Amino acid sequence: MILCEIGNTHYHFMQSGRIWKTAINSTPDLKLEKGETIYVVSVNSDATRRLARRYQIFDLEPFVKLDTLYYGLGVDRAVACMAIETGVLVDAGSAITVDIMRDNVHLGGFIYPGLVRFQHMYAQISPRLQKAMNFSIDLECLPQSTADAISYGVITPLIRAVERLARNKPIILTGGDGAYFSRFFEGSIVDNSLIFKGMEKIIKGFEF
Amino acid sequence: MILCEIGNTHYHFMQSGRIWKTAINSTPDLKLEKGETIYVVSVNSDATRRLARRYQIFDLEPFVKLDTLYYGLGVDRAVACMAIETGVLVDAGSAITVDIMRDNVHLGGFIYPGLVRFQHMYAQISPRLQKAMNFSIDLECLPQSTADAISYGVITPLIRAVERLARNKPIILTGGDGAYFSRFFEGSIVDNSLIFKGMEKIIKGFEF
Repeated sequence: MILCEIGNTHYHFMQSGRIWKTAINSTPDLKLEKGETIYVVSVNSDATRRLARRYQIFDLEPFVKLDTLYYGLGVDRAVACMAIETGVLVDAGSAITVDIMRDNVHLGGFIYPGLVRFQHMYAQISPRLQKAMNFSIDLECLPQSTADAISYGVITPLIRAVERLARNKPIILTGGDGAYFSRFFEGSIVDNSLIFKGMEKIIKGFEF
Repeated sequence: MILCEIGNTHYHFMQSGRIWKTAINSTPDLKLEKGETIYVVSVNSDATRRLARRYQIFDLEPFVKLDTLYYGLGVDRAVACMAIETGVLVDAGSAITVDIMRDNVHLGGFIYPGLVRFQHMYAQISPRLQKAMNFSIDLECLPQSTADAISYGVITPLIRAVERLARNKPIILTGGDGAYFSRFFEGSIVDNSLIFKGMEKIIKGFEF
């Protein structure tokens, strides 16, 4: 079985427990068995069409069932949430989404800009704020320079908001910057296969 | 006595307790007594020169004395901090600066982007995130839509970071969005004359 998440910048694959990604602007070169289907979750219809021209794909979106009141939740967020029974899910990519699950119910979530975007934003406010971020800041020390003041200003508010929502719930991180943020949450879990676990759950529900 | 803070977008004046601002791209038209000096704190040297061509100005910057280890603190931030003995100062403008004072010592601070910048940034991440912010969100309710998820993602992290730093210290807000943010901090104070109070403190130190 081969699973594929199609995002804005990459195709992410999982096959036999192996996870890899390829850039979105080329069609992935895959070794599949004859007639093998790629199960897909996509937020990028152009890239989906490109994959479908070369391979047999099966879009799982119509089968995504997440108990939520949230209107307009991205299918990638919904599927990752399906992999979690109770906890706070932080997906740290070009945007950082934070979603709260309790007993398989999605209670809501929020969206914070990704780390790279912040750096652009400060530079746009003032040339004096055009500084390289210090990713090794200590949240317990108050910043004493512009570079630290900016780094703290990006990272600490997110951490405090997540801590406040999590209380005693587990924190699960995924996405490109997930491992980075995990250092700030004691006992947190980094799991880059979360969306694939959600996809497997949907497929198991088919009861072949 | 007339006081003027020269920022990136406006001249801010205080005279006889009255506060007003004028756009930075024109020279202010002031009614002064003959030989009257304008006391100035400036982060904008072009605008300062323009004012100095028409009026007699006295730059207070060399007399700013703030007990701090912070390297590169903007003069406007430093002067506003001088007006506070103990507390957390939030100056919410095109950038949002948060500074912590204890017994007239500046313990450090951080910089968060201003509200307007965030809206641009979300739109740059994805057209799906191009939403008008909902400024009337309730921080105790988890967002159930993209617009609320973005609004919560901008506002709540800042609030949580400030709360955490403030503990039992007073929170004092200033700047264009200071009054807006005050609703989230029970017992907080909005004071748009803070920088002028700092300037008056410096001038009093001259002991005429």
